[in-house]
Amino acid sequence: MDAVTKEAFRNAMSRLGAAVHIVTTAGEGGRVGFTASAVCSVTDEPPTLLVCLNRVSALHEAFAANKVLCVNTLSFAQQDLANLFASKAGMTERFAQGDWQTALTGAPVLANASVVCDCKITASTVVGTHEVMFCEVLMTRVDLDKNGLIYYDREYHPLPARNDLQ
Amino acid sequence: MDAVTKEAFRNAMSRLGAAVHIVTTAGEGGRVGFTASAVCSVTDEPPTLLVCLNRVSALHEAFAANKVLCVNTLSFAQQDLANLFASKAGMTERFAQGDWQTALTGAPVLANASVVCDCKITASTVVGTHEVMFCEVLMTRVDLDKNGLIYYDREYHPLPARNDLQ
Repeated sequence: MDAVTKEAFRNAMSRLGAAVHIVTTAGEGGRVGFTASAVCSVTDEPPTLLVCLNRVSALHEAFAANKVLCVNTLSFAQQDLANLFASKAGMTERFAQGDWQTALTGAPVLANASVVCDCKITASTVVGTHEVMFCEVLMTRVDLDKNGLIYYDREYHPLPARNDLQ
Repeated sequence: MDAVTKEAFRNAMSRLGAAVHIVTTAGEGGRVGFTASAVCSVTDEPPTLLVCLNRVSALHEAFAANKVLCVNTLSFAQQDLANLFASKAGMTERFAQGDWQTALTGAPVLANASVVCDCKITASTVVGTHEVMFCEVLMTRVDLDKNGLIYYDREYHPLPARNDLQ
């Protein structure tokens, strides 16, 4: 059996709802960030998540050099940032929007993100065009008042905030 | 810097909305299936997704032996199946619920899943307690009439069906 066409695969993947993140890094390799939905929890022993990144991307070298990254999970109000960091805009233009601070690792952290995971990249694996970066989580921050953002069927959708705790 | 506590990591991950799948396999290693949210698109060249699985799980050997799997993405109406395949119920009891057919690879495929991806496992990587299985997608099927199911904040949430195509 051969693999399915790219188009069929992309259509199927578009129907898997996923959270939307801006994944950032900074250091000797430069300060960069991109919008990602291919972020996934792996294990809590040690606390580890993974991020998929296209190896053709100009960003790839920055992550490889800096060996740290921050996953900034967006809320429903942050769709514009998601679009900006998925566009062809340069890094200066991207980081001009949003309230960016510096995480413990030195990676840019978004002040009002729904969830933040500051990480060191501990391993990586090449899979076709992409690299899968495995990241040990050094710091987390959760804002229970922020509602969630899901990308599904090529559109953004909201998820409820934890109103019952307010 | 040390990694965060398991509890802090789990709380952060609980605020990353994710689709819910039943991942199945069948073959010499036996017929098994489990509920997963740690499924992620990797690359469309070749069409590849990944699935994370606890290596301590009794299911692990079945996937390793069979070298195929099917990702059955659930709709909002299939929460009971998600709970069943996440429970301690045995495999006979699990597959007694739902309309299970056989995919091209031999893996069980859920007749009314929202999305189906039938795959061969092409590589795997050990990360802490877990194994990440990289899977080339051989067949996809999408049901645009099914609404999506998201697990977020330890609860199920619906996503709209493609009503504009009906």
